[in-house]
Amino acid sequence: MNLKKQQAIGIFDSGIGGLTVAKAVAEALPNEDIIYFGDTARVPYGGKSKETVSEYALEITGFLLEKGVKMILVACNTVSAYAKDRIIEKAGTLPVLDVISAGTQAVLDHPKHKNVGVIGTLATVNSEAYVRSIQQEDPGISVTQKACPLLVPLAEEGWIDNDIAKQALSVYLKHFADKEIDSLVLGCTHYPLFKQVIPSILNREETYIIDSADSIAQMAKEKLEKLDLLNSEGGEFQCFVSDRPQRFHELAQRFLGKPLKQAEIIHL
Amino acid sequence: MNLKKQQAIGIFDSGIGGLTVAKAVAEALPNEDIIYFGDTARVPYGGKSKETVSEYALEITGFLLEKGVKMILVACNTVSAYAKDRIIEKAGTLPVLDVISAGTQAVLDHPKHKNVGVIGTLATVNSEAYVRSIQQEDPGISVTQKACPLLVPLAEEGWIDNDIAKQALSVYLKHFADKEIDSLVLGCTHYPLFKQVIPSILNREETYIIDSADSIAQMAKEKLEKLDLLNSEGGEFQCFVSDRPQRFHELAQRFLGKPLKQAEIIHL
Repeated sequence: MNLKKQQAIGIFDSGIGGLTVAKAVAEALPNEDIIYFGDTARVPYGGKSKETVSEYALEITGFLLEKGVKMILVACNTVSAYAKDRIIEKAGTLPVLDVISAGTQAVLDHPKHKNVGVIGTLATVNSEAYVRSIQQEDPGISVTQKACPLLVPLAEEGWIDNDIAKQALSVYLKHFADKEIDSLVLGCTHYPLFKQVIPSILNREETYIIDSADSIAQMAKEKLEKLDLLNSEGGEFQCFVSDRPQRFHELAQRFLGKPLKQAEIIHL
Repeated sequence: MNLKKQQAIGIFDSGIGGLTVAKAVAEALPNEDIIYFGDTARVPYGGKSKETVSEYALEITGFLLEKGVKMILVACNTVSAYAKDRIIEKAGTLPVLDVISAGTQAVLDHPKHKNVGVIGTLATVNSEAYVRSIQQEDPGISVTQKACPLLVPLAEEGWIDNDIAKQALSVYLKHFADKEIDSLVLGCTHYPLFKQVIPSILNREETYIIDSADSIAQMAKEKLEKLDLLNSEGGEFQCFVSDRPQRFHELAQRFLGKPLKQAEIIHL
């Protein structure tokens, strides 16, 4: 495949959560065109089976390939956990990066990473993808996981720092009370919204909070530099969704803090 | 269409919530065969558009018609709000009942129903389907609604009477504090799980709680009697889902409190 600098970066997620990744990428690479796909008709993926999630992920990969992207960023932890290999296979020589690999790299890059905590959706935690991904690089790292199913709906309700959010976080993070974790991976793209309150609830100042959106943006930049595919003339951000483009558009503008082109609806 | 007593009753929902309806129907009509479809691959419907929900609902209706049911019960409030008329059209002369019509009937049947409260998902509340349905029968009834997006995930987490659930309910039900409601409709099939704690949080002993599962089961019984279609030889309960049959099966058995045949997976 003969890739060109002017081609866009493709980013996808089950819904709006992946906009945290899109935002980090737009900040790290302001002159790249970005095509974002949010599967708002079928969100959330967190409770669905591996087969179903893989099927959806391959449909979206096909869509991004048709759009002529030069790189695919998998911004959904559930997809990264279940379907990464099949996406890479389908994408051929096109580079594919995913949030779990990026989160793993951030763990390894941090000097303190002997006891790592991971929070995510039920699907991400049950898949044990972070455990495998981290221990493959360093089997000496201890990884403790906790599924936090209520955090996505809390984030979407806008309850990110009220008593209810804090109590839910207390219940979930109690799991790490006697684990002395030195890093905590936010294994779901919605969770950065709780980044301000998590440290006080963890009650361990020294715990380093890992947000894989920043990490995947950095990896994308390095990869494009290495392949000599950095664009200097782009900067457009275009969104496609499978349902409710207007609602997505409003959320996306608020999320990215700037006016955007209308999101287009696509039936896969 | 020439319907026969031996044919099953078809019930469907976006996921597992509609099992509250299936349970009420099995109790009211123990000698009927029931075919239940839960769209576990595409759950939840609450945040999806009218077009998408209608498309899914018509696919499921087609599946139940192929299965040869004698009646369809729409156990999903979002589908009832968005797609009832199109399901009736597709079902032809086959009787179709839905939870919103059933909830409305329960409101009208109760002696105190001048000030009615309705809680539901965002989609159900935004559709104003309960308001229209109730005021069409009696324009003098005042209807106040409140969307409670966190209650479904709380119910699925099993947090139905802890501090977090009570605080979330307090925030939502505060909406009715100065409304002096005499009935409260649980406009989502998950909400009956909170039936025990709602009265103390509402702090109005005289408020009557309306659970439309009981109401639709009663309506189904009367309709079948009227059409001379009551079965006296059935009692089988068969489930079909669009994803994760094993997980559904476990939940369904716990839910209905008896052993069931394996749920079968169907790709629509």
